[in-house]
Amino acid sequence: MLGTVQAYLKDNHDRLVEELTSWLRIPSVSSYAERAEDVRRAAVWAHQKLADIGFPKVETISTDGHPLVYAEWLAHPDQPTLLVYGHYDVQPAEPLEEWQSPPFEPTVRNGNLYARGVVDDKGQVMLVLAALEAWARAGGGLPVNVKLLLEGEEEASGESIDAYVRANPERLEADAALICDTSMISETQPSLITGLRGLVYAEIAMYGARRDLHSGSFGGVAPNPIHALCLLLSRLKGEDGVIRIPELEAATPSPPAVEKRFWDTDPLNLAGLLRHEMGVDALVGEAAFPPLERLGARPTLEVHGIRGGFTGEGAKTVIPAEAVAKVSLRLPAGLKPDQVFDWLERAVHRNTPDGHRVEVRHLGGGEGMVVAPDNLFIRAATSALQATYGVTPVFMREGGSIPVAALLDQVLNVPVVLMGFGLPDDALHAPNEKFSLAQFDRGMATVADFLGRIRR
Amino acid sequence: MLGTVQAYLKDNHDRLVEELTSWLRIPSVSSYAERAEDVRRAAVWAHQKLADIGFPKVETISTDGHPLVYAEWLAHPDQPTLLVYGHYDVQPAEPLEEWQSPPFEPTVRNGNLYARGVVDDKGQVMLVLAALEAWARAGGGLPVNVKLLLEGEEEASGESIDAYVRANPERLEADAALICDTSMISETQPSLITGLRGLVYAEIAMYGARRDLHSGSFGGVAPNPIHALCLLLSRLKGEDGVIRIPELEAATPSPPAVEKRFWDTDPLNLAGLLRHEMGVDALVGEAAFPPLERLGARPTLEVHGIRGGFTGEGAKTVIPAEAVAKVSLRLPAGLKPDQVFDWLERAVHRNTPDGHRVEVRHLGGGEGMVVAPDNLFIRAATSALQATYGVTPVFMREGGSIPVAALLDQVLNVPVVLMGFGLPDDALHAPNEKFSLAQFDRGMATVADFLGRIRR
Repeated sequence: MLGTVQAYLKDNHDRLVEELTSWLRIPSVSSYAERAEDVRRAAVWAHQKLADIGFPKVETISTDGHPLVYAEWLAHPDQPTLLVYGHYDVQPAEPLEEWQSPPFEPTVRNGNLYARGVVDDKGQVMLVLAALEAWARAGGGLPVNVKLLLEGEEEASGESIDAYVRANPERLEADAALICDTSMISETQPSLITGLRGLVYAEIAMYGARRDLHSGSFGGVAPNPIHALCLLLSRLKGEDGVIRIPELEAATPSPPAVEKRFWDTDPLNLAGLLRHEMGVDALVGEAAFPPLERLGARPTLEVHGIRGGFTGEGAKTVIPAEAVAKVSLRLPAGLKPDQVFDWLERAVHRNTPDGHRVEVRHLGGGEGMVVAPDNLFIRAATSALQATYGVTPVFMREGGSIPVAALLDQVLNVPVVLMGFGLPDDALHAPNEKFSLAQFDRGMATVADFLGRIRR
Repeated sequence: MLGTVQAYLKDNHDRLVEELTSWLRIPSVSSYAERAEDVRRAAVWAHQKLADIGFPKVETISTDGHPLVYAEWLAHPDQPTLLVYGHYDVQPAEPLEEWQSPPFEPTVRNGNLYARGVVDDKGQVMLVLAALEAWARAGGGLPVNVKLLLEGEEEASGESIDAYVRANPERLEADAALICDTSMISETQPSLITGLRGLVYAEIAMYGARRDLHSGSFGGVAPNPIHALCLLLSRLKGEDGVIRIPELEAATPSPPAVEKRFWDTDPLNLAGLLRHEMGVDALVGEAAFPPLERLGARPTLEVHGIRGGFTGEGAKTVIPAEAVAKVSLRLPAGLKPDQVFDWLERAVHRNTPDGHRVEVRHLGGGEGMVVAPDNLFIRAATSALQATYGVTPVFMREGGSIPVAALLDQVLNVPVVLMGFGLPDDALHAPNEKFSLAQFDRGMATVADFLGRIRR
C-alpha cells in the first residue's frame, strides 16, 4: 500500500508544489495588524484544502487573535490518533530590498523554492497535507486517526492556541503529536529534535530628557538614551557571551552526560557547518561551553533590533529623548518564561545608567521542552527517516523555540515528534527564505512512511 | 538717526515677521537629496530680499553642492567693512508626528513662532536683514560697508563655503564678521560667545554574518552586530562620561583661570537652567569637571542615531547582519578634525569585539575657535546688548560647532562676533523648534544699534 501512496506523491508532485505556491502568495504576516485579512485568507486556504483531502470535519475557529483551523478524521477506533500541528502565519519579510525575488511571489531557483514562509512553516505543513492526501486517495484511506490543528500566531504572540489547547484537552486527546517545523543537520544527515529551548521576548525603552536636544547646546551634560541602552545591553551580556542575570544561570540545569559528550566531541563537525552557513571564521559566545551546547542547551540573550535618534541620510546632531531595543532570552527546558521575564526586568533596572528612565515590556514567549526518545512514535519516525535517507538519524536539541511543543507535551501529555525537513541555509526569518524541493519530496515520502508505521 | 531706524523696525514688525514666515515655508533641508530644489528656492528668496533692501550687488553662486548667496554694499571708503554670515538651510524635521504644528507651516503660539529653521538660522538671518533694511530706508543708508555671505549646507557638509572662502579671501576681506546663529543664556541675561567647539561626525557600521540569521538556529554562537556596536560604544565612553580616546584627552588644553573660575562657581546657576530645559533631576557626564566646562570646553562623544535588525511592531527573532550608529565628537578649539577622525577610527578598530568587521565613515566636521574679547567690535556688541537688555552680557563658550566661524577666523583673520538671540528652550534640531518673537524684536534692535556703533 505504501508503494501506491509514494507513487501518488511522485505523480502529483508538480500540482502539490503549485498548490503550495498559491498558499505562499498570501502575505499572512501575523505581527502586522494591517495584514489580519491576509492571515484570515491563509486560514481559509487551509480549511478548503483539508476539506478537499476528505476530512469529514473541518472547522475555522475564531479567537481573540487570528483563527485556528481544526480538522479530524477518526475512522479507526482500534488505531492510534495522531495530532498534527502547524502554522500558516509567517514572519515579516523586511528588509524587502534584500530579496532576490519578491517574498510573496514564490520563485524556483536551483532546485529551491524561495518565498517568505516556504519552510517556516507553510511548506512543511503542505508536505504533511500531501502525505495525508496520498493515503486518502491512493492508500485506501488514512491508516490511523488524525486530528490537525493549525494556528496563525506562531510568529506573533501565540496566545490563542495556548488558550484553546488548555480549554479543550479532551477534544485534542491523542497518542502522539507530529510537528514539522524544524530543520535537519544537512540533506544527507537526517535528525530528530529531542529538545527545544523556551523564549522570552521583550522590548526595552530607554528615556532621557523630556525632548530631543541639540548636542552642541547640551552635549556633555545631557542624558543620552542611545548610549545608556548600549551600556545596559553591554552589561547584560559582555563580549565573553556570559549573561549577567544570576537567577538564570543558577536555574540552568547541567545536561545529561551522553548529550554533553556529543556536544564536546562534535563528531559530525556541526560547528564547521555553522561557520560555513554564517560565512564567519570563528564562532562567538561563552568559551566555557562547546558551540553545540551554547546553541542547544545554554540560555542566550540576543538583541534583535535597535533604533533611536537620527538614522537617515547625512548628519544630524540630535540627542534623542528615547531609544528602543528588542531582545530575547532563549531558555533551557523547565524554566518558566514569566519568571525569567521578572529576572530580566530586575537586571535591566539594576544596570540602567544613572539619569535615565527605563521600561521593559513583555512581548511574548514560551516554555522549552525535552522529548524522551524511547517510544513507538519516535522509533517510527527514526525508521521512516532511515528508509528515506538511507542514514540513521541523530537526536539533536534545537536552539529555536516552539512554544506549542511544550504546550502539547504538558497539557496533552503525549510524545511530540519534532521531525522537520528544513536545512541550515534556509534563511528562516531572513530575506531569501527557501525550501529545497528535494527536501520537500523527501519530507512527503517520510511522513507518508511514518503514518504507515504507527498503524498497529 | 538710530531713533528713526528703531522706529522703522517697530512700524514694520508685522510685515517683517510675515516675510520671515514665507521663507520658513520652504523646506530647505540640505541633507536630503530630494530637497535640493527647495534649498535652491530658499537661496532665491534670500537673493531677492537682498536686492529689495537695495544691495547694489547680489549674486547666487553655484557650487558642487547648494548655492551660496553673496551681496555687498560698499558706500563708505572711510568706514569699516562688516562681513555677515548666515545659513538658509535647515535640519531634517523628523520625527514629524511630534510637531504640534507642521514644521513648514509657521505658527505663532504664546508669543513664539514655531517652524523648522526659525531660530537656526532663518529667523536670525532675517533680524540682520531687517536691521540692514531699516538703516537703508530710514537711516540714510547703511552706516558701514557690508558684505554678506549665506550658505545652504550648514546642516550638511558645509564643503562649498569652505572652498569658496579659501579661494576668495580678497573678495571677502573685512574688518570683522558677524554671525547670529547662537543662543543667549536667557531672555533677561544676554551673552556673547567667545569660543566654539569643533566637530567630527562619523558613521560606524558593524558587520557580523553574511546574512540575517534566525536566533533559534544560531543564537549563542553567532556574531551579533547590534550587540557588538553596543559594546564598542560603551567602551568608547563609559557611564563615567570619560572618552577612551587617549590622543584626544592628551590634546585637550587646560582652560584659562578666569573661565575655569566662572565654570567652577557658576554664579548664574546655568546648571540649574540646563536641568530645567531638559526636564531632568541631575546632569550626567565627567564628574571631574563642572557642568559648564563639560558643555563648553571638554570634548564630547555623543551617539545621534542607531539602527539595526527588526524595529517594527511586534516580535521577530532575527540576528541581523549589520547595524549602524551615527556619532560625533565635539572638539576643543585648536584640534584638527581630520586628525581626530583618525584617532576615533583607531579607537573603533581597537575596541571592536572579536568576530565582527567594522567600518568608520567620515561624514563631516569643522574646527573650533576662541575669540579674543578685547577689540572694537566685541565692545560694540557688548554695548548694543547692554542698551537693549539693560544688563551687561557675559562671555560664554558655546558647546555647538559653527565651522564657518573658525574658517573666517583663520582665513580672513578677523574678529568674529557671535551674537545670537536664541534661547535654551528653542528646541534646535528637535521637533517644535521655535523663536521667541520678543527675542526677534530685541535682536533686530540690537543689531541695528551695533551697526551704528561700529561706524568710525
